[in-house]
Amino acid sequence: MSHNSFGHLFRVTTWGESHGAAIGCVVDGTPPGLRFSEAQIQRYLDERRPGQSRYTTQRQEPDQVRVLSGVMPGEADGELVSTGTPIALHIDNVDQRSKDYSEIARRYRPGHADITYDMKYGVRDYRGGGRSSARETATRVAAGAIARLVLPGLVVRGALVQIGDVAIDRSRFDWDETRRNPFFCPDAQTAERWADLLDGVRKRGSSIGAVVEVVADGVPPGLGAPLYGKLDADIAAGLMSINAVKGVEIGDGFASATLSGEDNADEIRMGDDGRPQFLSNHSGGILGGIATGQPIVARFAVKPTSSILTPRRSVDADGQEVDVMTKGRHDPCVGIRAVPIGEAMVACAIADHYLRHRAQTGR
Amino acid sequence: MSHNSFGHLFRVTTWGESHGAAIGCVVDGTPPGLRFSEAQIQRYLDERRPGQSRYTTQRQEPDQVRVLSGVMPGEADGELVSTGTPIALHIDNVDQRSKDYSEIARRYRPGHADITYDMKYGVRDYRGGGRSSARETATRVAAGAIARLVLPGLVVRGALVQIGDVAIDRSRFDWDETRRNPFFCPDAQTAERWADLLDGVRKRGSSIGAVVEVVADGVPPGLGAPLYGKLDADIAAGLMSINAVKGVEIGDGFASATLSGEDNADEIRMGDDGRPQFLSNHSGGILGGIATGQPIVARFAVKPTSSILTPRRSVDADGQEVDVMTKGRHDPCVGIRAVPIGEAMVACAIADHYLRHRAQTGR
Amino acid sequence: MSHNSFGHLFRVTTWGESHGAAIGCVVDGTPPGLRFSEAQIQRYLDERRPGQSRYTTQRQEPDQVRVLSGVMPGEADGELVSTGTPIALHIDNVDQRSKDYSEIARRYRPGHADITYDMKYGVRDYRGGGRSSARETATRVAAGAIARLVLPGLVVRGALVQIGDVAIDRSRFDWDETRRNPFFCPDAQTAERWADLLDGVRKRGSSIGAVVEVVADGVPPGLGAPLYGKLDADIAAGLMSINAVKGVEIGDGFASATLSGEDNADEIRMGDDGRPQFLSNHSGGILGGIATGQPIVARFAVKPTSSILTPRRSVDADGQEVDVMTKGRHDPCVGIRAVPIGEAMVACAIADHYLRHRAQTGR
Amino acid sequence: MSHNSFGHLFRVTTWGESHGAAIGCVVDGTPPGLRFSEAQIQRYLDERRPGQSRYTTQRQEPDQVRVLSGVMPGEADGELVSTGTPIALHIDNVDQRSKDYSEIARRYRPGHADITYDMKYGVRDYRGGGRSSARETATRVAAGAIARLVLPGLVVRGALVQIGDVAIDRSRFDWDETRRNPFFCPDAQTAERWADLLDGVRKRGSSIGAVVEVVADGVPPGLGAPLYGKLDADIAAGLMSINAVKGVEIGDGFASATLSGEDNADEIRMGDDGRPQFLSNHSGGILGGIATGQPIVARFAVKPTSSILTPRRSVDADGQEVDVMTKGRHDPCVGIRAVPIGEAMVACAIADHYLRHRAQTGR
Repeated sequence: MSHNSFGHLFRVTTWGESHGAAIGCVVDGTPPGLRFSEAQIQRYLDERRPGQSRYTTQRQEPDQVRVLSGVMPGEADGELVSTGTPIALHIDNVDQRSKDYSEIARRYRPGHADITYDMKYGVRDYRGGGRSSARETATRVAAGAIARLVLPGLVVRGALVQIGDVAIDRSRFDWDETRRNPFFCPDAQTAERWADLLDGVRKRGSSIGAVVEVVADGVPPGLGAPLYGKLDADIAAGLMSINAVKGVEIGDGFASATLSGEDNADEIRMGDDGRPQFLSNHSGGILGGIATGQPIVARFAVKPTSSILTPRRSVDADGQEVDVMTKGRHDPCVGIRAVPIGEAMVACAIADHYLRHRAQTGR
Repeated sequence: MSHNSFGHLFRVTTWGESHGAAIGCVVDGTPPGLRFSEAQIQRYLDERRPGQSRYTTQRQEPDQVRVLSGVMPGEADGELVSTGTPIALHIDNVDQRSKDYSEIARRYRPGHADITYDMKYGVRDYRGGGRSSARETATRVAAGAIARLVLPGLVVRGALVQIGDVAIDRSRFDWDETRRNPFFCPDAQTAERWADLLDGVRKRGSSIGAVVEVVADGVPPGLGAPLYGKLDADIAAGLMSINAVKGVEIGDGFASATLSGEDNADEIRMGDDGRPQFLSNHSGGILGGIATGQPIVARFAVKPTSSILTPRRSVDADGQEVDVMTKGRHDPCVGIRAVPIGEAMVACAIADHYLRHRAQTGR
Repeated sequence: MSHNSFGHLFRVTTWGESHGAAIGCVVDGTPPGLRFSEAQIQRYLDERRPGQSRYTTQRQEPDQVRVLSGVMPGEADGELVSTGTPIALHIDNVDQRSKDYSEIARRYRPGHADITYDMKYGVRDYRGGGRSSARETATRVAAGAIARLVLPGLVVRGALVQIGDVAIDRSRFDWDETRRNPFFCPDAQTAERWADLLDGVRKRGSSIGAVVEVVADGVPPGLGAPLYGKLDADIAAGLMSINAVKGVEIGDGFASATLSGEDNADEIRMGDDGRPQFLSNHSGGILGGIATGQPIVARFAVKPTSSILTPRRSVDADGQEVDVMTKGRHDPCVGIRAVPIGEAMVACAIADHYLRHRAQTGR
Repeated sequence: MSHNSFGHLFRVTTWGESHGAAIGCVVDGTPPGLRFSEAQIQRYLDERRPGQSRYTTQRQEPDQVRVLSGVMPGEADGELVSTGTPIALHIDNVDQRSKDYSEIARRYRPGHADITYDMKYGVRDYRGGGRSSARETATRVAAGAIARLVLPGLVVRGALVQIGDVAIDRSRFDWDETRRNPFFCPDAQTAERWADLLDGVRKRGSSIGAVVEVVADGVPPGLGAPLYGKLDADIAAGLMSINAVKGVEIGDGFASATLSGEDNADEIRMGDDGRPQFLSNHSGGILGGIATGQPIVARFAVKPTSSILTPRRSVDADGQEVDVMTKGRHDPCVGIRAVPIGEAMVACAIADHYLRHRAQTGR
């Protein structure tokens, strides 16, 4: 058991704080012979990287990843081959502003984990949020880049589907569009509305919540396991472990509470390929914790960041009542950068279950 | 790693199928010196037991639990004292109707895990749903009864807060009411509406989804852990592992996506007891994966059972297209009996984190 | 983590005390489609069963095993087919003599775990040794019978190679002989000497230590893993977890401390089958934690049981100094019945590594 | 599960190869508030560091450790305070000679893990032994330095007690002496004999095995757990995971096979402090897997390194028969540097069990 690890056979252990020398993770259990490059991991990190639009924090971090172990050079330039031993991924922290932390060190920002870390440990790294900073999520994204290689044919894509109470129009859903706007929005018209919405939020020094959807194609039927190693349970845990996530759903999710059995059950017919084919996907690709072969569909709700310019009532470590206003560099909508993070967590869960399934069934 | 275990220090391993000789679980890691009785466990099992109203399946199972190990007799009559060694809980299956399974053995009921078990294992126990039957949840409830004793002062209560699109009126929320109607409904007026709603569902041979809310009081601040052993991540995994659950949320959950940072962050003042006191509980009692000391609030969505009388299109194990209608004894709304199950899973997660917290911090 | 489980993918959780209603274990992670019968498990249990000669305890336990879950009936009579869900194995305790435990409840038998259980838990099941009784090992043997089926072609055999200071003559090593004498001795002449030796020990009410050797044939090269999941490390942990075991070695073991590099390294040539062939097996079939394809050879030392008729100085739970003499039914040499137990632990470790290897490499 | 992690609550994950950019480990689960410095870790690394006498390899590695996360600066200069989040320890590789690996890349050195890594993974880092190099053990020693701080009052010391067939004279055992000679030998006279012995071995380009003893004082009674989380089982697994270790024993170990029950059981009397006091320590401080409060005594056998100048028969990756002679920098007796490594593994196991015990019992 480790509080800072996830996965069982594809296992990731992360370390690091916002303002330490570096952050990183160890990826253990990777099959030998996977071929990739640092540039390939970097591409995913770049998607999560802050400072790329005015809608995300202006902290400047190159997030340059280095692979320190577990690989041998491949034939092609920059190509690496996994050897089956642990892969250490290392990212230096570059833009930790040295500043006076005396104020923030003692004051608990409402909605942040400042107070609970102190309640638990009695000591914490208060610089830039320390371990609870979203900075840690870079290591997840790096691990996810490896995870994507484990199951051949796996494609994991994410999209932001709601900001505040403005949801996308699903009839306009277009994966290609998600890379054309700064919101990972699959619907160009909604992206424009979000731009206006977020400009207002940003100018008010406020923040706002969002919903992210992650879809995994190419997951073969059979992955997952009853009853506590359910694929959906592991995806739920992975997504819920992301900072600021307050809800997770699979397939129809909470909407399924309102359905009748007739409407909810996905009917089956034989496909042209001689395999069973589902006529709908209310289940989100998972029945009884086991993949059906349909796309896996997961969504998660991200709360608004609590770093806002409006003063909020709080207390400090000495028990004094104070008003706290969080200056500094922050995301008005952390849900945006949560998209590549959500993808990474789903990819890691699937990679893990692929190995677990292969172990038990030999397939 | 075990697909059929959950928890780390308070660890539960379950076994058994719907129509085998028995079901049971092993609870390992229990502190020594806990005092309880079989009757005490039984009380929780009785809440989950089928056949107690016309709104649940008519299968008759006494669900009589026996404690086979890990205890010594206490002083009082029937009292048991945990010794710190594994506690085996055993429940005989009594009402497995012996019938002809030849039809169901080959036909995949849409919305059920029949097809995915076959896809994964190539062999499955099709009698009464086998391992994927809700029958297994009795063992969780039994384990949860032990879990409730681990953290002194812990109170875990559940309520059904929505059936179909009929939600309770929160202004009438009354915990006492949950034990007065057959729905665990905390709002007497809504309970009456549900009775009508479910009578209709039942008569149509249909089924309907629901939302359950579980609240844990008495959880001391500090329980939980960054970043992958978050208390909310473990609760989410536990709830998502219950049959038919498709979504989980903590505190404001998906609604927090629509909030601004000002509205979402729970402000803090000093309480009369000299301890920090939160002025609201949008967080559901968890910040950064760590308990704040406020009530833990979790909700989960239960899909409608797929066992319905309306024929649905499907295929059989031979690849023949068939129509499937599920006769037999079934719950029109499995969300009802999910209430004590949800309580048990939350209790187990908290017991586990109580031990994990004590390990690391000595408190 | 569970104190009462072992293995990762082939995972066994045991429960039960010497004088409770039953003992048992849950075997999780078994591949689907394994075919076996209760009689097949019983055969191994019968080898460990007490009371079969005058050299083991006279407690009479039929050790009748029942498979309560995780299987479907096969075609042949009594045949079971694993479904991939957890297999619960259940053995009733039959011959727990009801007697007065008031004396033993408070007095610590020297060399036994009575005092350490009390030091740890403050409460213990003192009846017949409770959880620390060798009775628990029956569940390991039952689990081992399943483990033997996981890796096709695996053969695990054990032999007693030393009692007291009388070791076998390796030039007369004959596996068939191990089933012809009551000692699992592979050398008929030594077996006769042991009979005399043990008759003396038994008549004196004394006990004596022993060394057991377990050899696994048919382990394919590649099983195992650097660096903390080494096959030898897992075998060592498994054997050391058996009651009364105080030492474990692989291959030449402690004797390799006296060797030079020239003598210790197993040279390699190409075999007639076109595969590398080792010219000796000092390594015991494991290099760098990974199987070489040669037989795996492990040995473990079993201390003499501390249940003897000679009074020994001790204390009781009240801090009074007492003399303790252990009457009752005991093994003069627990090393004898440790043979099938050692086999089971090695078989379980190999089954686990077979699944782990398959997970990572796909082979 | 992770092949490259050990411990459960005090959990160490290591990464790195002999000739990569760096090696390191992540230590998770550390209690908050531990105070230490990089210099303090360094002291233990310096004991393991090569090139300190003519009896160890001449590779020059400063083994300079850096703490990259999980700490805040303390008050004193260089002092660090653990925050309870994962501690990343990082050691750069400095003296990887760039040389032509074309020969060693294909040839399997007998007695080394070259061939088994290839059998398992089909690809390996052959530079300097890659992952199977003893270089990895530096990370264990660094982790062990943290582990020593977890249990207040714990003192873990190691000594070399045998090289080849020359064992120490226990009547001259002196812990202080272990730091006065280059062998960690507790007996000055034997150290002189070993100097002669090893000079011969070294000049012949040969190598020789050894036995290391590790003793832990200050372990409170109660640590450990039945039945698969036994303290001795975890120590055995930890020691067996060290490169070249082929045997492990606790207390009297293999010698207990030759004892009678009368001689083996440690008698007990009440001590002057009003606590039970054992009159001998055949058990090595552990009964039933649980610490007695006496010193924990473990020993392990280290085989001679297989890197020798005498040509040995082998094969290469193409199936060609070759003769292999291992030039380069090597330890004539790897048992010497195994002393601080063994200490580290025992310290880690005890730290882990301290946390596990505290979790379950609250003490």
